[in-house]
Amino acid sequence: VASDDLRDHGDPGDAPSIPPPLVPPSDTTRPSAAEEARTIAASTNSGTLATLTAAGDPWASFVTYGLLGGAPVLCVSNLAEHGRNLIGDPRASIGIVAAATDSDPLANSRITLAGVAEKPTGDERAAARQAHLDAVPAAKYYVDYSDFTLWVLRVYRVRWVGGYGRMDSATGVDYAAAEPDPVQPIAAGAITHLNADHAESLVQMAKTLGGYPDTVAATCTGADRYGLDLKITTERGVAYPRINYGERLDSPDQLRSATVELTRRARQV
Amino acid sequence: VASDDLRDHGDPGDAPSIPPPLVPPSDTTRPSAAEEARTIAASTNSGTLATLTAAGDPWASFVTYGLLGGAPVLCVSNLAEHGRNLIGDPRASIGIVAAATDSDPLANSRITLAGVAEKPTGDERAAARQAHLDAVPAAKYYVDYSDFTLWVLRVYRVRWVGGYGRMDSATGVDYAAAEPDPVQPIAAGAITHLNADHAESLVQMAKTLGGYPDTVAATCTGADRYGLDLKITTERGVAYPRINYGERLDSPDQLRSATVELTRRARQV
Repeated sequence: VASDDLRDHGDPGDAPSIPPPLVPPSDTTRPSAAEEARTIAASTNSGTLATLTAAGDPWASFVTYGLLGGAPVLCVSNLAEHGRNLIGDPRASIGIVAAATDSDPLANSRITLAGVAEKPTGDERAAARQAHLDAVPAAKYYVDYSDFTLWVLRVYRVRWVGGYGRMDSATGVDYAAAEPDPVQPIAAGAITHLNADHAESLVQMAKTLGGYPDTVAATCTGADRYGLDLKITTERGVAYPRINYGERLDSPDQLRSATVELTRRARQV
Repeated sequence: VASDDLRDHGDPGDAPSIPPPLVPPSDTTRPSAAEEARTIAASTNSGTLATLTAAGDPWASFVTYGLLGGAPVLCVSNLAEHGRNLIGDPRASIGIVAAATDSDPLANSRITLAGVAEKPTGDERAAARQAHLDAVPAAKYYVDYSDFTLWVLRVYRVRWVGGYGRMDSATGVDYAAAEPDPVQPIAAGAITHLNADHAESLVQMAKTLGGYPDTVAATCTGADRYGLDLKITTERGVAYPRINYGERLDSPDQLRSATVELTRRARQV
């Protein structure tokens, strides 16, 4: 992932280093940048919009949104600065931040969806209105005010940053074609359960499937439709192996049996 | 507050209405927009930056920041899109969202600080570097990387939105001169305590000091150096009175005695 981003940072030499695996890990497939972006967009209903003022200055402002096939649907007042900005120049992008999983803000995931805002018409307008209301129930109080306008952000370009050193770009076409991860809505609860009740299984996974036979402690930091992200301690330092189920999950119901199967496989090796 | 923003929304007639006070409330001073903005900026260490791409498109991206006299200090890689953007055109704004106090995203507070990013030099660079490190401890791992640049956002214009119908603008000069609210860091705990243990006192405050003698239930929704925000139920509907201490607090230590004194005054009237 993101080989184009692993550029030289001019490291002054005092950053922590990550020990490599001692054995090649079996399968390290992760969601694509387009999938990550769809998942993050679907995980919340607010972000920060960047628009252009009449002077061409960049203007950052908080907005709520719904999603129509991945395209953010905004409902903003023409009296508000961002509403006036979109009328003047429809170029826009939206920054969306996933719920924090780490106390270091830059370790968390975020995306930028960039493109052009358009006023939907006809059937698409009705679908956009409903998509916004589904995501932002309080919008029922103002969605039909005459000064509010629905805008669909046509996404031309996507940037995903998954934390330190995990980042990549995607086209608007790839973004539109990708699915939000079906496991994401229950991932936080599953991670808590794995860490609370199955710490020894996580260590075993890191040892036998993750390429780190010298693992001494492991916590799960992420779960998606393809596998688990672990943060482990080895005698050589802290590392972040990936443990995959071996099959793509299509529903949150499958997560429990997939992790049970991983535990079984990890013990068999 | 914000009389210039109380414009006609073309109300279709089905939004909830707020009953007016039956008695003029005693003192409804609130923090200024500049004070609100300084307080929100000081309450967190991350926001979304709006910059301009080479094509002049608006680009929204997550950033961490420290504060130098209220000016956000960024530390961004020149390899990242926002870093390249700032080098190409230093115009920028940052959107900052306060921690949520309401499940409706648009009921929460947020600001935009707009201006021009500059690379600090000499003593200011050292102070800016320290301000960033104080706010973002993990920056110690990359602040001295050769591809990272410190930027101070010179704030020329401020927009504050405190929720529905509470919004105002401030100049960069007013923003720089304002203080972050000293009560903010302990406000959430104090509000929880007032609601859990002093609900009857809050009702009494709304009745005798807030202008709503028909109050039947009250919860505290905000606390700052000037007073408390309440959400109350009356037989006429839900209202949001302001209850002030009568003096400006200059330290968080003073909040407890100020609310005790409010309770005493509310019972005496």
